[in-house]
Amino acid sequence: MPRYSINNQRLNQTLQELGHLGESPTGMDRVAYSPEDILGRNYSIKLMQEAGLKTRIDTAGNIIGRRTGTDDNLPAIAIGSHTDTVPKGGKYDGALGVMAAIEVIRTLEEQGHFTRHPLEVINFTNEEGTRFHRWLVGSRSMSGLLEQEDLDAVDDDGMGLGPCLADIGGDMSRINEAIRGPDELAAYLELHIEQGPYLHQSGNPIGVVTGITGRAVFEVEIEGKANHAGTTPMATRRDALVSASKLILAVQQMAAEQEICRVSTVGSIRAIPNAVNVIPGSASIGLEFRDTDMNALAAAEQELRRITDEAKVNEEVRIDVQRHRFTSSVPIAPDMQALVAEAAENCNMTWEPLASGAGHDAQAVANIAPVAMIFVPSVDGISHSMEEYSTPQDCANGTQVLLELLLLADDRF
Amino acid sequence: MPRYSINNQRLNQTLQELGHLGESPTGMDRVAYSPEDILGRNYSIKLMQEAGLKTRIDTAGNIIGRRTGTDDNLPAIAIGSHTDTVPKGGKYDGALGVMAAIEVIRTLEEQGHFTRHPLEVINFTNEEGTRFHRWLVGSRSMSGLLEQEDLDAVDDDGMGLGPCLADIGGDMSRINEAIRGPDELAAYLELHIEQGPYLHQSGNPIGVVTGITGRAVFEVEIEGKANHAGTTPMATRRDALVSASKLILAVQQMAAEQEICRVSTVGSIRAIPNAVNVIPGSASIGLEFRDTDMNALAAAEQELRRITDEAKVNEEVRIDVQRHRFTSSVPIAPDMQALVAEAAENCNMTWEPLASGAGHDAQAVANIAPVAMIFVPSVDGISHSMEEYSTPQDCANGTQVLLELLLLADDRF
Repeated sequence: MPRYSINNQRLNQTLQELGHLGESPTGMDRVAYSPEDILGRNYSIKLMQEAGLKTRIDTAGNIIGRRTGTDDNLPAIAIGSHTDTVPKGGKYDGALGVMAAIEVIRTLEEQGHFTRHPLEVINFTNEEGTRFHRWLVGSRSMSGLLEQEDLDAVDDDGMGLGPCLADIGGDMSRINEAIRGPDELAAYLELHIEQGPYLHQSGNPIGVVTGITGRAVFEVEIEGKANHAGTTPMATRRDALVSASKLILAVQQMAAEQEICRVSTVGSIRAIPNAVNVIPGSASIGLEFRDTDMNALAAAEQELRRITDEAKVNEEVRIDVQRHRFTSSVPIAPDMQALVAEAAENCNMTWEPLASGAGHDAQAVANIAPVAMIFVPSVDGISHSMEEYSTPQDCANGTQVLLELLLLADDRF
Repeated sequence: MPRYSINNQRLNQTLQELGHLGESPTGMDRVAYSPEDILGRNYSIKLMQEAGLKTRIDTAGNIIGRRTGTDDNLPAIAIGSHTDTVPKGGKYDGALGVMAAIEVIRTLEEQGHFTRHPLEVINFTNEEGTRFHRWLVGSRSMSGLLEQEDLDAVDDDGMGLGPCLADIGGDMSRINEAIRGPDELAAYLELHIEQGPYLHQSGNPIGVVTGITGRAVFEVEIEGKANHAGTTPMATRRDALVSASKLILAVQQMAAEQEICRVSTVGSIRAIPNAVNVIPGSASIGLEFRDTDMNALAAAEQELRRITDEAKVNEEVRIDVQRHRFTSSVPIAPDMQALVAEAAENCNMTWEPLASGAGHDAQAVANIAPVAMIFVPSVDGISHSMEEYSTPQDCANGTQVLLELLLLADDRF
């Protein structure tokens, strides 16, 4: 039996309310730093304050709500996730982890239960990394993992991160002040939807995350020759979009057929000038490989460079391959996995161990604290889409286990 | 010997001045109805008025500058082209025809030569058709060829043509008043760059256009399933961008290998949501086929529908093929071709007959008047690109032949 019951209805109501901010007929749009993102952030601040938390925004733009512990000299236990979304994303990715963390605090408040450790609810900024093509920006800032390239990144309009940070209450010039030492957090516990099909297929309500996948992101630019689509003979064309299409199919086959890495995806494309009566002169594609085995990611990069080198010669185009990120896979410590399993069992829920195919703030925070992650099912494994869905019961189950996990961690650490 | 010499330097100076309006490091941007397009239009009006023409803008937004003839009861002879460009286009496409027409009038003014027929310089609006995916809008309006779909067209932001027409001095509610009867114009004569490689290869300064290619334009929308790029197994994906890539290669091969039609091009692409960590849920491509043989265009459409039907089944995606335009090829009358050849010979220039791979305002005007077209070389056949180039001598040669052609037409008609 869990020690206290969370309020299923209250939890799901906050999830629905948050899900109306940035909602459109084609999906959620709370891309980091957008007006809609700020609406979502402000909603989380309001809820944190109502739950009695003392809130602040660090220089990286992360929202941190703190609750005193009975022994305030102990490092804090942090729970949370993020409220930004991909373009046309879903209502649960990130959102569940933040709403659940707040529900956990509300339950403790109602029960008059004070933990030994101080508690923190963290809403990390810019987990998805859509606008600047740099992800986990808030959690990596806090964990001392920010790189010069993150600071120098510009969006597709050439605009830098500084003004965006200012918009959300951060401060680019003092962003290093967001870094926290390895003795500041006793643990970071994150509830998240699985975003994959396994729990929905198995019927287990809880996934104990064993590790987080590694990820390599590339931008490939292809330079051919723009020309008139009606007057240029087929034989003399150097069509950048044709070359890009061949590359897209080759990248897809690297995971689907050659099995060089677990998954490979070309998610974005841009052609210039992108008019039907002009042969595309240049094109760029954004792609990524994921695998928990870092050797597989290295092999995928090698293959990508081989096929682009081949295309340069065969198709008389210039190709530039830029590696944007190479994120190491992060194993989750066996004792932290065991604590999640124990929490699930205390709540009478079946569980299974599961590797995370997606990246999460927890993988950055792992640099400064022990981390644990709880997964709940995603219906049909759909995510990053308006059809992303986890049932109210799934969301409540995960939140219940998060509360129990927090109390176990408070006992043991 | 030509009767009068045009002013080579003055012509090329106006071309260069026009080429600074909407200029950027990546090419010309005077997309129809944009502020830059209006700058170019206003420049042409200023030059027309300086040349003594009486200017007006018709309800479709075409700029018409008129000069009295000695017999003003005769129908007018019109010369001109367009000053709008594709995005990142060149300085000569369309621009040469308008600047040359104005130079012809200036030369006649200087020489005190009055033609029997009234003369008109016409700067047709929106030849390229980028924004609303509907082309030759000005010339088709004047020639009574506008369709309901042109009037209903919206741009990618869902905005209609009406406000755009108002911006350039047209009037959507009275657009039919722009239509001219078959007895209003004695002839329409258009000078244009070839936009293909043939004259540059042969070394002939003048091309006598024998006909204008037919063109079929399609928009293909592919609906797959957006999902998380890290968590979705390769085998269960329905990636719209992968399906689009296969289609792009198949369309390219239809002309390049299967030789179903002369040229086939996918010029534009859009993926949604277009983020590197999301499997594209939908994608759309804009494509066109061109051939002077209309049977070849019909065969190309049939093949397009066959391969998309196949893809629907094999890749479990929904595909919608929409035909945006099907423009018939337009032959140019032998006596009009002969008149261009005679004008070239009067100017001591060698010429060759040439089919136009590109579409031109002349093909619309052919519905209400006899038309003729003069081509001059495009260096390396490059067009719709910032590298589009015709030498000052090429431009002057074409303008000289246009003047001579106009005087021959004034004598014979």
